[in-house]
Amino acid sequence: MNIIPIGDPQDPRVTAYLDIRERDLVGRHGRFVAEGKVVLDLLLSTRRFAAESALVLENRLAGLQPILRKAPADFPVYVAGGEVMDKIAGFHMHRGILAIGVRGDPAPAEALVETLPRRALAVVLVGISNHDNMGAIFRNAAAFGADAVLLDTTCCDPLYRKAIRVSVGAALQVPFASFADTATFTATLDRLGFSQFALSPRGAHDIREADRSPRLALYLGTEGEGLPRDLLARLHTVRINMAEGFDSLNVAAASAIALHHFSNR
Amino acid sequence: MNIIPIGDPQDPRVTAYLDIRERDLVGRHGRFVAEGKVVLDLLLSTRRFAAESALVLENRLAGLQPILRKAPADFPVYVAGGEVMDKIAGFHMHRGILAIGVRGDPAPAEALVETLPRRALAVVLVGISNHDNMGAIFRNAAAFGADAVLLDTTCCDPLYRKAIRVSVGAALQVPFASFADTATFTATLDRLGFSQFALSPRGAHDIREADRSPRLALYLGTEGEGLPRDLLARLHTVRINMAEGFDSLNVAAASAIALHHFSNR
Repeated sequence: MNIIPIGDPQDPRVTAYLDIRERDLVGRHGRFVAEGKVVLDLLLSTRRFAAESALVLENRLAGLQPILRKAPADFPVYVAGGEVMDKIAGFHMHRGILAIGVRGDPAPAEALVETLPRRALAVVLVGISNHDNMGAIFRNAAAFGADAVLLDTTCCDPLYRKAIRVSVGAALQVPFASFADTATFTATLDRLGFSQFALSPRGAHDIREADRSPRLALYLGTEGEGLPRDLLARLHTVRINMAEGFDSLNVAAASAIALHHFSNR
Repeated sequence: MNIIPIGDPQDPRVTAYLDIRERDLVGRHGRFVAEGKVVLDLLLSTRRFAAESALVLENRLAGLQPILRKAPADFPVYVAGGEVMDKIAGFHMHRGILAIGVRGDPAPAEALVETLPRRALAVVLVGISNHDNMGAIFRNAAAFGADAVLLDTTCCDPLYRKAIRVSVGAALQVPFASFADTATFTATLDRLGFSQFALSPRGAHDIREADRSPRLALYLGTEGEGLPRDLLARLHTVRINMAEGFDSLNVAAASAIALHHFSNR
C-alpha cells in the first residue's frame, strides 16, 4: 500500500470522500463507499470489485495493517486526523475507515445465472426498495450460502452505502445482477433447470414441506404488495406459518427463514 | 373521540408532541410516541397501554375514523394542517399520525412469567442495545405467537419511538418486562417448568433437532459478544447452521428462524 497523509480537507486526492451523505443521494459515477473494518476486508479480499483507495483515521492505521496488506502495492491509503476526516466526510466519522470501490460493468442476470454450479441457490428480488431490507437480505444470502442474488429493475441499489453497511459487506461478496423483464427471466431459470419458489403469505404450501432441488430459485417481493399475482401463478408458492391473525413478516426476516430452510437440506 | 383543531404549534395542549426527535433522547416522563396507522390501531385496540391523545394531519382524519372509534369518548384527537404539524414535531411528518401512550408501572419479569399459560413461548433478551433489532425481534415475537419478551437491564427500550415503529406496533402488543439478575431469573423460569434454550453460533445442537416443550424460553444475546459464557453453561445451547466460513447472523434474523422453528411444532 501507499500511505499518503492528508492535512487539507480540500486536497483533490480525497475528492471522492467529500460530503458522503449528500453524494449518497446524487450518486458517485460508478463508485461506491465501503465503511468499516469488516467491509474493507471483504472489499480487498473478495476482489469482486476493484478498490480505488482508502481513507482512514491515523489512529486506526496500525490495526488495519493485516487487511491493507491484501491490497496492491500501489493502493493509496489516505490517512487523516479526526478533524480533517470529519471535514472531508461532512459528518462525524466515528469508525474512521472508508474506501472507494468501482462498480465496473454489471453483467445481466441472464449471464450470471448461466455461470452457476449444478447445485445452486439463487435469490430473486422483485421490488425490494428499502436499503435496510436489501442489506439484510444480502447478509442472509451470504450466511446461508446463496450463489447469486438477481434483482428486477425496481429494486434499490445493493451498493448504496447503507445497504453495504447493513449487509456487513455481503453485498461485496455475493454475486448479483439485474434483469429487465421478470417473465423472460423466469423462463431463463426454468430452462436452466431451476425449481422456482415464491414466498407469499398466501402460499399454497408450508415452506417446511418444500423440498430442496439441486437448483433452486427463491423469489421475494415487496413487503406491502408482495409478488405480482401473474408471477405467483407461474411459480411454486410457499408460506411461512404465523400466529393466528398475523400475516406480516419483514421481508428480510422471511428471507432468513426461507434461506435457512433451503440451505440446510 | 373529541376532535380539537390546533392552529398554533405552541398550543400547550400539544406540548407532548413538540420536538419529537430531541425528546427521543431525553425521555418523556413515562410516555411514549406511537406513529402511523397500524401502530395507532394496536395502541387503541390492545389496550395494553393507556392512550393519552392523538395528533393527526387534517387530511388523514376521515380515513382514521374506524380506528379512532376504538378510543374512549373523551379521547382527544388534535388535528392540524401540514405546516403546523411539522412545526410541532420539528421535522416533516409525512405519515401525519402520532399518538402519546403512557408506560404505566411495569411489572417485574418474575411477575409476568408467573401469569403465562401452561403452553408458552418466552423470549429472553440479554444486552440487545440496538433499537432496530429490538423492534424487529418484537415483530417476530408477535408473528410467531410468543407470549412474552423478558429483558435484562442492559437491553434498550422497546418503547423507544424507533423500536415501536420497526416492530410495526408489536412492542405495544407482546407483553414484556425486565429482570434485574439473569441467574435469578433463569432459576425462576426453571422452577416454572420452562425448557431453556440459548441461541449461540457455537451451540451444541442444530436448532432443527431441538424439540418444543410446552413451556419454552429462548435466550438471545448481543450480536457481537453473544450470551455470557456462564449463562450458556446453564442452558441448552442451539446453533443455526450457516455456510462454511460464516458465523454471523443478525440477531433479529436469528430470532425469526428460531421462533419459527419453535412456534410451529
